[in-house]
Amino acid sequence: MPVGGGLIFRQAATEEFMARVADRVFNFSAGPAVLPLPVLEKAQAELLSLPGVGASVLEISHRSKAFDGILENTLSNLKRLLGVGGDHEVVLLQGGASLQFSMVPMNFLASHSGEANYIVTGTWGKSGLREASRVGNSHVAWDGVEEGYNRLPSAEEVTLSKNPAYVHVTSNETIQGVQWQAIPTFQNVPLICDSSSDFLSRPVDIADYGMLYACAQKNAGIAGVTVAVIRRDLLSRSQEKLPAMLNYQTFVEKGSRPNTPPVFAVYILGLVCEWILNEVGGLEHIAARNAAKVSKVYDVIDSSEGFFRGHACPASRSIMNVTFRLPSEELEAAFVKNAAAEGLSDLKGHRSVGGIRASIYNAMPAEGVDALCQFMSNFKSSHG
Amino acid sequence: MPVGGGLIFRQAATEEFMARVADRVFNFSAGPAVLPLPVLEKAQAELLSLPGVGASVLEISHRSKAFDGILENTLSNLKRLLGVGGDHEVVLLQGGASLQFSMVPMNFLASHSGEANYIVTGTWGKSGLREASRVGNSHVAWDGVEEGYNRLPSAEEVTLSKNPAYVHVTSNETIQGVQWQAIPTFQNVPLICDSSSDFLSRPVDIADYGMLYACAQKNAGIAGVTVAVIRRDLLSRSQEKLPAMLNYQTFVEKGSRPNTPPVFAVYILGLVCEWILNEVGGLEHIAARNAAKVSKVYDVIDSSEGFFRGHACPASRSIMNVTFRLPSEELEAAFVKNAAAEGLSDLKGHRSVGGIRASIYNAMPAEGVDALCQFMSNFKSSHG
Repeated sequence: MPVGGGLIFRQAATEEFMARVADRVFNFSAGPAVLPLPVLEKAQAELLSLPGVGASVLEISHRSKAFDGILENTLSNLKRLLGVGGDHEVVLLQGGASLQFSMVPMNFLASHSGEANYIVTGTWGKSGLREASRVGNSHVAWDGVEEGYNRLPSAEEVTLSKNPAYVHVTSNETIQGVQWQAIPTFQNVPLICDSSSDFLSRPVDIADYGMLYACAQKNAGIAGVTVAVIRRDLLSRSQEKLPAMLNYQTFVEKGSRPNTPPVFAVYILGLVCEWILNEVGGLEHIAARNAAKVSKVYDVIDSSEGFFRGHACPASRSIMNVTFRLPSEELEAAFVKNAAAEGLSDLKGHRSVGGIRASIYNAMPAEGVDALCQFMSNFKSSHG
Repeated sequence: MPVGGGLIFRQAATEEFMARVADRVFNFSAGPAVLPLPVLEKAQAELLSLPGVGASVLEISHRSKAFDGILENTLSNLKRLLGVGGDHEVVLLQGGASLQFSMVPMNFLASHSGEANYIVTGTWGKSGLREASRVGNSHVAWDGVEEGYNRLPSAEEVTLSKNPAYVHVTSNETIQGVQWQAIPTFQNVPLICDSSSDFLSRPVDIADYGMLYACAQKNAGIAGVTVAVIRRDLLSRSQEKLPAMLNYQTFVEKGSRPNTPPVFAVYILGLVCEWILNEVGGLEHIAARNAAKVSKVYDVIDSSEGFFRGHACPASRSIMNVTFRLPSEELEAAFVKNAAAEGLSDLKGHRSVGGIRASIYNAMPAEGVDALCQFMSNFKSSHG
């Protein structure tokens, strides 16, 4: 199913770009997801031997000078992109956001007399809440389950417990396709945010966060590394009796190297940061790109006279994951199958909710979005 | 510092092989470590687009058919190599062996009325013991610290506690360079073995093990994935209240995919398994190769009239990590520096013990070992 199976691609893209992606599809996977082509090309070029090192990045010691440079560069570029100053620490972890669902309460709830508060806006928020409940007292500050997680709450709808240890939010729900455009904050209560599926897709004001964490495999790199930005004063909550590898202090003290970090995943994360900084021009620019890309898809949905029905209420729509339904499950299956045949892959919605999901992360080229919009219009014309 | 800086390499190797490694060093790193060249070459060739998929292995969904195949293939080849039958489960985890130091007691000690027994033969065994002590009652069945961890105990020296939950051993101590040639077993007590630095380097009788675990970045792949082989009957010890991502049952039930696994690290692990099976001919053959390689280095040490002094007692010597001293720290520094200049990298001993360490894993070519032996002889001649 090579790109170019449909003529639409050739019309939409430059010849030079299309030559480089000749045997690649446009990949709308929710994650692991498409990476910037220059990142893949650099990784490929260096894969047998890092320049000046004489070994693959897959083979170098995590204590080598080569990896010192890669790690420092990655951390400093993350700090630059996120505007991290002296109040926060940036650490790299393993185990995905799912392990953070447990590490957050182990570190920040177990030693606190109050309750972990969760604003549940979709599947991932619910998973976070479940793991917090295993560790200590939890409180549901809002839950959108009755409306099928199709919107975010207003400030008035959120009710915190009496003595909140923290408030946890999910900035973008990958499965339902709802996203906070302005993250809510609560006076004197640390805000902890799972930003897995919109990390590095737009600017953040890091001062708002007690902790911001994200797995890398959506906008920032590959599966196997998780970024956490933690406000320093919260670190005193981590108890010494915690297992070393589950204590944030260990990673802060050892500079993300208490043991062997996932070297290659850190290297790719670093390349993606460089791509955002040097080729895109920073988070403001990537946010503008992302908004322009996704608005085309929502326009096709909104002008389809109900053929495509968006899952999320317009005010809560995600810039990253566009979730929608077609008139029947049969048409949805045909949509996914025909799209794949034209080189538009991974458009099937999450198995828990069905429908269609187009994930349009940082690295999805505009050509891919144009091709998707054209395909959607054609599909409606022939099946509507 | 390209290979070929010293003429010795050109004499020892075939022209075809040397052309392929022209800008690569011989990498004696203790881990992450050298990978088989055919594995690197295949990964490089496929890095922009997996054949028939149209996306990089770095970009594919962990629920895609492509990754289904990679995961199944990797697990079935691991089972084949290790002779795993119906009594054991094989799971892939994250966090390195260090996270297993905590997961082992969380799963197998917390619900048991007895004590975790540790045979401490070096730095890694000691780290495992420390983490077990955070979780529950532990017992030191033997500790070689007073002799600087230069030997393994005899059966008579090991004293178990009254009610052992399990016995933990480290099959190869990477830092000190001591290795069990026959793993001790204890009637009716599950044996749990950290095999991080000799995993897939020789055959094992899996029936001996309650659990065998290993990070991949020595003999089996890259940092970021950890293999665990667990005897099924032990899984009932894992309590439901454990955090989901720290409970072995989660990984067994979800086939190593409770959340996004480290896709690329699993892919490389799979390629290394295929290389051992198809190019080397299995674990018997790789073991014979490894023994032949390392014996050359020990021969140089033993015939050096005391210029090179091995750390480990001969009967406890490691096939993987050769640790030795020179007459002075100045000579050791010169040895490491001169070797690097000739394309023999990462020979410095671990910072905690000093001296020299040559790690000679599965993928170290015979040419690299020959070059090291020649370098050692030359160094002795000019400095002895």
